[in-house]
Amino acid sequence: MNYGPETEVLIAGLREDVARLHSELTRYGLIAWTSGNVSARIPGRELFVIKPSGVRYDDLGPENMILCDFDGEVITETPGSDRQPSSDTAAHAYIYRNMPQVGGVVHTHSTYATAWATRGEEIPCVITAMADEFGGPVPVGPFAVIGDDSIGVGVVKTLTGHRSRAVLMQNHGVFTIGRDATDAVKAAVMVEDVARTVHVARQLGDPLPLPQESIDALFSRYQNVYGQAPEGALQ
Amino acid sequence: MNYGPETEVLIAGLREDVARLHSELTRYGLIAWTSGNVSARIPGRELFVIKPSGVRYDDLGPENMILCDFDGEVITETPGSDRQPSSDTAAHAYIYRNMPQVGGVVHTHSTYATAWATRGEEIPCVITAMADEFGGPVPVGPFAVIGDDSIGVGVVKTLTGHRSRAVLMQNHGVFTIGRDATDAVKAAVMVEDVARTVHVARQLGDPLPLPQESIDALFSRYQNVYGQAPEGALQ
Amino acid sequence: MNYGPETEVLIAGLREDVARLHSELTRYGLIAWTSGNVSARIPGRELFVIKPSGVRYDDLGPENMILCDFDGEVITETPGSDRQPSSDTAAHAYIYRNMPQVGGVVHTHSTYATAWATRGEEIPCVITAMADEFGGPVPVGPFAVIGDDSIGVGVVKTLTGHRSRAVLMQNHGVFTIGRDATDAVKAAVMVEDVARTVHVARQLGDPLPLPQESIDALFSRYQNVYGQAPEGALQ
Amino acid sequence: MNYGPETEVLIAGLREDVARLHSELTRYGLIAWTSGNVSARIPGRELFVIKPSGVRYDDLGPENMILCDFDGEVITETPGSDRQPSSDTAAHAYIYRNMPQVGGVVHTHSTYATAWATRGEEIPCVITAMADEFGGPVPVGPFAVIGDDSIGVGVVKTLTGHRSRAVLMQNHGVFTIGRDATDAVKAAVMVEDVARTVHVARQLGDPLPLPQESIDALFSRYQNVYGQAPEGALQ
Repeated sequence: MNYGPETEVLIAGLREDVARLHSELTRYGLIAWTSGNVSARIPGRELFVIKPSGVRYDDLGPENMILCDFDGEVITETPGSDRQPSSDTAAHAYIYRNMPQVGGVVHTHSTYATAWATRGEEIPCVITAMADEFGGPVPVGPFAVIGDDSIGVGVVKTLTGHRSRAVLMQNHGVFTIGRDATDAVKAAVMVEDVARTVHVARQLGDPLPLPQESIDALFSRYQNVYGQAPEGALQ
Repeated sequence: MNYGPETEVLIAGLREDVARLHSELTRYGLIAWTSGNVSARIPGRELFVIKPSGVRYDDLGPENMILCDFDGEVITETPGSDRQPSSDTAAHAYIYRNMPQVGGVVHTHSTYATAWATRGEEIPCVITAMADEFGGPVPVGPFAVIGDDSIGVGVVKTLTGHRSRAVLMQNHGVFTIGRDATDAVKAAVMVEDVARTVHVARQLGDPLPLPQESIDALFSRYQNVYGQAPEGALQ
Repeated sequence: MNYGPETEVLIAGLREDVARLHSELTRYGLIAWTSGNVSARIPGRELFVIKPSGVRYDDLGPENMILCDFDGEVITETPGSDRQPSSDTAAHAYIYRNMPQVGGVVHTHSTYATAWATRGEEIPCVITAMADEFGGPVPVGPFAVIGDDSIGVGVVKTLTGHRSRAVLMQNHGVFTIGRDATDAVKAAVMVEDVARTVHVARQLGDPLPLPQESIDALFSRYQNVYGQAPEGALQ
Repeated sequence: MNYGPETEVLIAGLREDVARLHSELTRYGLIAWTSGNVSARIPGRELFVIKPSGVRYDDLGPENMILCDFDGEVITETPGSDRQPSSDTAAHAYIYRNMPQVGGVVHTHSTYATAWATRGEEIPCVITAMADEFGGPVPVGPFAVIGDDSIGVGVVKTLTGHRSRAVLMQNHGVFTIGRDATDAVKAAVMVEDVARTVHVARQLGDPLPLPQESIDALFSRYQNVYGQAPEGALQ
């Protein structure tokens, strides 16, 4: 399969990004063994790159990343296509199919986010970094098991129209979305960070509430001003 | 002692595996100082390779690993045989002797798993990763002290016929078994991960239950579909 | 812009210090992604060096640090001036403007310090290391959002006349000050360390109180005797 | 000062040991910034080697370690003697003076051990690794502040005739002793490990008790059998 030089360059770059970004999941302690995955949409195509299933992170080179279509099917005769893609591939595919503004998806079982998910409890927005990054509470998505589209449906349903780029899937773990794969990885890092901080705060008493108008002001500023290359919010 | 070229190649490879796998225990923070051990069965022989006793992990090369028989006796005139094997060797030997399907054994005192063991409380199966990996709760084994076969007996009795590859030995630590040493190390990493996540979940309330039918479906799928080289469950 | 050879040498050295000190924040796990910043005053000038906004720590070389004046404005035509400075630059500028004895400022959202800040609760002085380093409890500053001088005002108001070099900004995070940037980073490391230790102590009961006279004696000794180059207290 | 070739070789070796062992404190996260110290007795001499005060661990080479006598005075005209020794030197000196069997001393403020110390609560012996290593509970020593011999007195009084090589100094931190500096560092690593595990166990309920006869049997075995070079217990 050849998609023409322009797309092939895009694919090669995203294979590198996706391979490299898995090391960020390790660096921040978000994953144990092989339990997390990152994918990236190929802009302008109904294709995405995702990691193979059950492979150790030390073995993740760009050439092992797998190119899939939006049904989650592996594109044959491309590098890595002799392997099985991540067992969460169907969920990633469903998200790309239904959220055209999403350029990257991450899934982890990071400890504190998963703990909130296991109680089926949203993370209340009580710290300014959460208002910046997620614009309010991080919501809980439905319980859904692997095997059909129900995880993808749950992610899309929960995040559509929501400020948060992260969803706590009940009794399972966390999915994050972003403009691109880096942005989704950032959301995965930040959701674990705030999940832990709010957990620790709650252990010894009640967090003070953040006024809604401050949450709104912080989210708006962060989407528009922060960083070197201001962009609009994801949604 | 020479077991013929084929077996000698197997032994050499497993010496390397066992030496290298100890670094995974360090990487995931499962051990302090020298308090953990990994062993691997030599396929087709009543022999296994295990680490020496009380030696720092930085000093663990393949040539220092020790070859033992199924009574836990060191095979003389083989590399490393001038050292004492791990003080848990008798337990490893008992497990290999009584569980022919086991190719690798790991023992650690990892923090969260040992905390559950210290309360004598099984880890309830409330997250999908636990259903995948252990097929239900992680059980508690009896209190037993080093010196005879009682630790090995307790591990074998608890894990025989159980889906879990991990057992929490009361007031002590965790033993895991696997198809091979890597699989047993994976179980050691995952049991600490789920022990921590369920602990954190419980600190602020009650985890939601996982339906038994979902646990069964997840376990069955994971044993049969997940990863690059599908294999049957251990038991 | 050229400030003469003597000042230019100072600026070059402080660019290196500030770039390097960010790696201490990473090393001690005080920051996730890009959520922390360090700055250093140029002695004898109304200038300071601070990190750029939203840039990953791996990309922080001396040449990317940004030189600002005490209104928080970037000095044009200096290295790094094509970038936006940290979004907390206004707070750093306000502190330098109003606390002439301060040579370095650090801001983080480190987990345990932020947890105390989220409950609006000062950290009680119950361990000798806290008496040494902070001379008493670590105080809480007001809730204030980014956008004007209110964060800087809150930091200065809380720390003026206070022994502590750290302030817990309510629902937000921690600011620390120091004789220089290294001293402020040390305070950031130590405040998280004591925030965590006192949190853990409180989880299972009540810390024993430290007598006020011991706190006073420890703080006095530490300011005057400890280390290789005894100096007076910051304030 | 020259102590003759034999002693000079011993001193040079112990300078290297002490310098290197500080990196173990960092590796296990027992210290923040410069808040820990290791020393080693020069066998057969009333001398010991200790780290300098307030110096970062990255700067700790053998040549910077400081040789002191049993009054805690720096031996002039030896390498490192232009620096101040650790501010805890008087406590180390007192321990060597009064416990002739001790060859190494370590002091840290490691988080979980210090938390128990802050509540003035001994760590109950509820895990087999604690019985092995400490032979029972880890005791609490008196509250004492730096400046005279009171810390040393408290350590010696608490540990004399006690199986434990670790003492929790109230509201302060932990001191450990050993046959040599490595053994004392091992005790510092293990006391934090068991302090954390028992803390975590207690967070969700009551640890099961360990029978006293099992504690005795485990301690006896560990002192006599474990490791490559069996030696008698410290005391």
